[in-house]
Parts: sequence; C-alpha cells; structure tokens
Amino acid sequence: MTEVDGARQVFSANQRFYEAFERLDIRCMDAVWRQDEGVQCIHPGWPRLVGWPAVRDSWVRIFNHTRSMQFRIADVKIAVTGSIAWVVCTERIKMVMDEEPQETQVLATNLFVRSDGQSEDSRWLMVHHHGSPVLRRLPETPITDDETADR
Amino acid sequence: MTEVDGARQVFSANQRFYEAFERLDIRCMDAVWRQDEGVQCIHPGWPRLVGWPAVRDSWVRIFNHTRSMQFRIADVKIAVTGSIAWVVCTERIKMVMDEEPQETQVLATNLFVRSDGQSEDSRWLMVHHHGSPVLRRLPETPITDDETADR
Repeated sequence: MTEVDGARQVFSANQRFYEAFERLDIRCMDAVWRQDEGVQCIHPGWPRLVGWPAVRDSWVRIFNHTRSMQFRIADVKIAVTGSIAWVVCTERIKMVMDEEPQETQVLATNLFVRSDGQSEDSRWLMVHHHGSPVLRRLPETPITDDETADR
Repeated sequence: MTEVDGARQVFSANQRFYEAFERLDIRCMDAVWRQDEGVQCIHPGWPRLVGWPAVRDSWVRIFNHTRSMQFRIADVKIAVTGSIAWVVCTERIKMVMDEEPQETQVLATNLFVRSDGQSEDSRWLMVHHHGSPVLRRLPETPITDDETADR
C-alpha cells in the first residue's frame, strides 16, 4: 500500500463516519467503529465515553434527539503512519434538534486503525473521536484587527 | 521494546508536556513537540493551529497571559501502536489568568510519534494536542439520577 492509497482509504473512512452521522443510522455507525473496550469518544461538551457499548449508546441517544443533520467537512488534514491514521477537520453543521434549527462548527480529531482482515473499503476502523466547539474569539488573549481578519 | 516500555515512555512524554505547561516555560515546551509543519494544536475554544510556528506562538501567548497553572491529570488512557501513541486524559486545572483565579476541567487527546534518533527519555514527541472544555450536563439529552451518580 502506498502512502497515497492509505490517505485515500482514510479519507473514505472519515467520510463514511460523517455519512452515518448525517443519516442518523446506527447500523452505518456500527460499521465505522472498531467494536471493543479500547475505543473512546468525546462529543462536544460531553464527558468522555470509553468502550464500544457506551460509545454506541451515545450515538443512539444523539440520533434519537436529532431530526436532521447536514455536514460540510472542511480543512481535512490526514496523517497515516503504519496501521494508524488520524484526521483533523472542521465540521460545519446544520441540524434540527428537538424541533430547533441550529448551525454550529466543531473541530474534530478522528483516529483510525487499519484492520487487515477487512475488505479495502472498510479496513480503517474508527477508534477515537474527539469533537469540540469552536468559539469566535480566543479566550485567553485579545485579538488584534489583523488576526480577526484571518478568521 | 515491549508494549509496557512503550506505554511507560509515552506516559513520561505526556507528563513532560504538562510539566512544561505548568512551568509556563517555552523551552521545556520546545522539547516536547516535533517541530515541523505537520503538527497541530486545538486549545479549548480556539481555532485550529497548524504547523510548529503557529503552535509555538500559541504557547508563548498563553504563557505570557498566565501567572500560575496547576494540573492534576486524571483518567489517563494510553494506546501504543508501532511508532504512534495516543493519550486521552482529564486535565483538572487551577490557574491564575490576567489576575483572576479559575478552576476548570479539560478533556485532552494527545498524539505522540516515536523518533528513534532521540534518547529513550525524549523519543516520543507530541504531534497533536486537542483540548476541549467539559460541561456539567449533556447538552442533547436530560440526565437521569442514576447517570448523574456515575459522574
């Protein structure tokens, strides 16, 4: 496998994650994750979840409370080293939750592990998702006009 | 290197990161990170930073605005696969920022890459830090009494 092949496969695995999320379909989400005690998930603002049963339950709960969800994934940066890959990206999200339309932006770190027993299309399985909200201003330090222009 | 050795080294690398942070010492922080264009850093609420110059600059700014910082690192979970390791942990932080004492809790995902040219003590270099605030309640769904008891 070349490095480019690896990055392409990981890009697809990352897309499958967001497709499952957008479809609010737990069976699609099941296919994205490695289903063992080692996986972890941090939803924006939530406490950390450890192990597949807790992670899966969180998706079921989110899907149950969400009527629709649209993702635009931007600034995707992929690194592949051996059988591990990590993706950092921006999730631009439009959603309807408990009848209320919302627009929000989340920064995500997604880790995938290659599982050689799988077919090429599904061999990269998610083992960690960390999503966190983006605020508009830096909390620790004032922003100059120049810096504001960059955002 | 056994798996236990790897985990021990990564644990130390993770500790060195928080020691540098606690000391507010940019030279210690320099020694923790791989200094190249591939590294990324997400401070709680900040936009994503890409590349060592931007990441280093953020530490300088944080250290300049912080008078004191005390970490208690909890719930450390380490995974090592080949030359990559990731650590997920809870940062319990007491700090004085711009004259104001604050207590806060952050969830962190820290990625390290093994660099075989280094001595054993400094061979695991940080390539990604993602820190995000923990809220007290789940935003999407009410918490029952039983669930609250688990936190």
